[in-house]
Order: sequence, then structure tokens, then C-alpha cells
Amino acid sequence: MSGSAITHTSRASSLTQRRRLINRALAQALPAPGAYPPVIHEAMRYSVLGDGKRIRPMLTLAACEAVGGALEDALPAACAVELIHAYSLVHDDLPAMDDDDVRRGRPSCHKRFGEAIGILTGDALLTLGFHLLTRPRRRPAVWLRIARELSHAAGTFGMIGGQVADVQASPTPGAEPIEYILTHKTGALIRAAVTIGGVAGGATKAALGRLTRYGGRVGLVFQLVDDLLDRDGVALVWGVSETRRRAEALTAQAKQAVSPFGARAEPLCALADVLLSREL
Amino acid sequence: MSGSAITHTSRASSLTQRRRLINRALAQALPAPGAYPPVIHEAMRYSVLGDGKRIRPMLTLAACEAVGGALEDALPAACAVELIHAYSLVHDDLPAMDDDDVRRGRPSCHKRFGEAIGILTGDALLTLGFHLLTRPRRRPAVWLRIARELSHAAGTFGMIGGQVADVQASPTPGAEPIEYILTHKTGALIRAAVTIGGVAGGATKAALGRLTRYGGRVGLVFQLVDDLLDRDGVALVWGVSETRRRAEALTAQAKQAVSPFGARAEPLCALADVLLSREL
Repeated sequence: MSGSAITHTSRASSLTQRRRLINRALAQALPAPGAYPPVIHEAMRYSVLGDGKRIRPMLTLAACEAVGGALEDALPAACAVELIHAYSLVHDDLPAMDDDDVRRGRPSCHKRFGEAIGILTGDALLTLGFHLLTRPRRRPAVWLRIARELSHAAGTFGMIGGQVADVQASPTPGAEPIEYILTHKTGALIRAAVTIGGVAGGATKAALGRLTRYGGRVGLVFQLVDDLLDRDGVALVWGVSETRRRAEALTAQAKQAVSPFGARAEPLCALADVLLSREL
Repeated sequence: MSGSAITHTSRASSLTQRRRLINRALAQALPAPGAYPPVIHEAMRYSVLGDGKRIRPMLTLAACEAVGGALEDALPAACAVELIHAYSLVHDDLPAMDDDDVRRGRPSCHKRFGEAIGILTGDALLTLGFHLLTRPRRRPAVWLRIARELSHAAGTFGMIGGQVADVQASPTPGAEPIEYILTHKTGALIRAAVTIGGVAGGATKAALGRLTRYGGRVGLVFQLVDDLLDRDGVALVWGVSETRRRAEALTAQAKQAVSPFGARAEPLCALADVLLSREL
């Protein structure tokens, strides 16, 4: 009981430390406030910095660590995946999409800066995300591979494809291409976040296979728990208890997939539990 | 007289051939029609294929050729720059931006497919543009460098910066940060189109310097001629004849910059003349 509480506390503090590391790297990666034209750089910082949970970049760092890489080796990849996630939120919130006025307890980007700047801020975050991957001068083949994985996962065979299916879905539950949305809208980027961490850390092909299995499972868990919390999507189709059961089974499979990494997989296991419990 | 007419004809037919080469490469680079989700791939093809002048990708191929590279070496870069240009048009046409219903004589993307798909199509073209640069397996350092140049030129210190300044500009001529818009909104991507062609062709540092001078000048000429045709922007600030005089001087400087490449610079010189005359 007390041992588990200690583990829980040390896990939480380790995740908090990593979130700080990521937040510092993001603040440095974004253009300085006041750089011309100031409004776009202010809107980019507004949309990225602040209260994000940083799940994707933490997965990137944890995957790098699992294969014996140094955290710094994966930081540009971690920042890139978070910027791409942030761009998708900014565009998702636009009036023509989900029309959300509030994001993370504050006015959404287009509510705060206007719709034109909202569109351009998303564009700028996506562009900067890719740009970050091109800056390292060492190991160009590694960074090109990371850019390949990430641009595939963010594109029409990944995240954008999922968003299109979601936008077009009929509002009647069960009528949507629900499995497709499940694996694409959020799953593809989460899976890529894990994979690119492995690539940055110099993973072997076998190790990458394990990470990809892990990433596919936790990506699904993320969406299942989202639907459970919102009582929509698969929670309506499969029912709450069946959805919960599947999320738990997937979490166990994810942890199993990375168990050959031994103690180095601890951050990945901690994140898998966090995604299931949403205790962040 | 007759010699010049022949040169004119052979130049035009050479440019037409290249446009065909680029159009074929673009048609192959875009996901097949019908690939799931079909609407986004249809909208991407609708927004890219068809009547484009292909100025930017032709500059990329010509720059590659000027430094002795093979055209195929630069094709992924040429397609990437055209996809990024196409994304910028799709987003520029959105109601919150320029609100244009017509593009190249057809309904603009959001008029044809709806605003949500318009936003996602721009996002998808930008993402695919970067993805194309990550596919070549040979010469990763070259492709990472090309991705670095292009993502910088497309970002907030290039094209997006120019668009933000344009969106925010007061409608009173002379009150806009006109020089900034001039060099950024269209100039940055045109300059990068030339530079990345040189990088793809294996340009030396000195050769890249010449290409960058050429690209900076023709990028300005493009915008000056745009303003002359529309009788706005700098045509109002500087006057028509002064703007015309500057465009001609810049064209001469551009051709001068690449004259050390000799006969291999002929396509670059032909394109410089085309940008000035807009005879495409």
C-alpha cells in the first residue's frame, strides 16, 4: 500500500519534471514575443504555452529513453509533435469546424485573435513543427525519417483523414465510420509520437516494432477514455463497461509490448497508466 | 527579328514541356482519387491540378539545371513548393481571409467543398508538401536542407509573415508595411523555390549565392508586376512607370546574377523574362 503510494508519487513527480522540460523547450522553439509580425507570434505562444498536458511529447521522450537514447536527442521531435497537435486544436476550434469558443479554460485562438489569425496561427504551428525537425545538423537520415513518420501521421492517411471522417460523419451514433475515426483522428499522431521517439533514440527495427505496438494501443486507449469521459463515440456504440474493459485490456497489451525494455520502459508504463486513468 | 521569334517559340515550347513534366509529377504525388476519405483527396486534386502556371516549380527545375543537376533530382522539391503555394491559395480564399469565390475560373475550394474541407485541404497540401521532401532515401542531408529552406520560407518569417502583415494592413495605400509584404508574402517562397533547386542540383556555396540573388530579384518582380496588373500596392505608391522601371532593372540584375552559369542559365533567364512580361 505504502510502496504503491511512493511509486505513484515518484512517477507523478518524474512526469511533472518532464512536462517542465518540454515546456521550456517549446518556449525556446517558438519565435520570441514581439518578433515581427508580433500578432502571429503572440497567437502561436498563446495557443501552445500554458496548460497543455504534453502527453504526446512525453511519449516521444519516454520512447527515446526506452531504447537507451538521451532525452535531448528527442527534444526537437517532442516539440514538433506538440506543435502539430496544437495546430490541429486551433483549426478544430474554428467556426467552420467545431466552433469552440473556449480551449483550456481560455478563449480559443480565433476568439482571442480573430478568425484570419486563427487560420494563419494553425498554419504557422504546422510549418514550425516541420521546421524544428530540419534544424539538427547531425544524423540527417534520422531526422528525415522522423519528418517522414510525422508528416505521414499528420496527413490524410492519419490525423487529417480522421478529422475529415469526423466532420463528415452523420450525427447519428453508430452511423459514423467510427473505427476509422478512432484509429486516425487522435491515434495516428499518438502512435507517431512514440515511433519518432524510438527513431530519435536509435531504436533497432525490432525495438521500433515493439514501440509501434505500444503506440497503437495507447492511442486507442486515449480515444476510448475520451469517449468514456464525454459519454459519446464508442462509449455509446459499445457501452460504458465494454469500452472500459477494452481500454484496460489495451493498456495491459501496451505495457506487455514494451516489457522487453525492462526498467527503461518504466516511463512508457507510467504514461500508459496515466492515459487510462487520466490522472495528470 | 526572325531569329528572336524562333528563340521565343523554342523558349515557350521548352517551358510548356516542363509544365507538363511538373503536372505529371504533381498528379502522381497527390493521393489517388477515391483514396479514403475520398472528399479530401478530391479537393486536393481539384485545388492543385488544372490551370496553374507552375512558376515556382519551373524555377526550382531551372535552378537545378543551372548548376548542372538532373531535372529528376529536383522534382520532389518542385512538387513540394507547388503544393505549399496551392495550400496558401486555398487558405487565402477562405471567407475569413480574402473571401474569394473564384480561383482560376472555377469555384474556389471552400465554395466547391465547404469551408471545413477548405481548411483541411490547405492543411493537407502543406503536410503533403513536406512529406514529399522526406521520401527520397538518397542524400538525406540534401533533403533535410531543402526542407529547412522551404519550411523557413513558408513560415512566419516568410510567407505567413507577409500574409499576416497583409491581413492586418490598413486599406489606405501607403499605410501598409508595403516593403515587408512585397518581400515576404510572395517573394520568400519564390526565392526559396530557386534556392532549393540549387541545393537539389548540388550547388556550391558560391553558386547558391548567385541563385539566391536571382531568386530575390525575380520574387520582387513577380509582386511588382502583380501590383501593376491590379493597379494596386506599390503601383499606387511608386506610380506605374516607376514601378515598371524598377521591375525591368530587377530583371536585368537577376539575369546578370546567373550569367556565370552560361548556357545552363538559359531556362532561368527565360523565366525571368516571363515573370516580367507575364506571357505564359
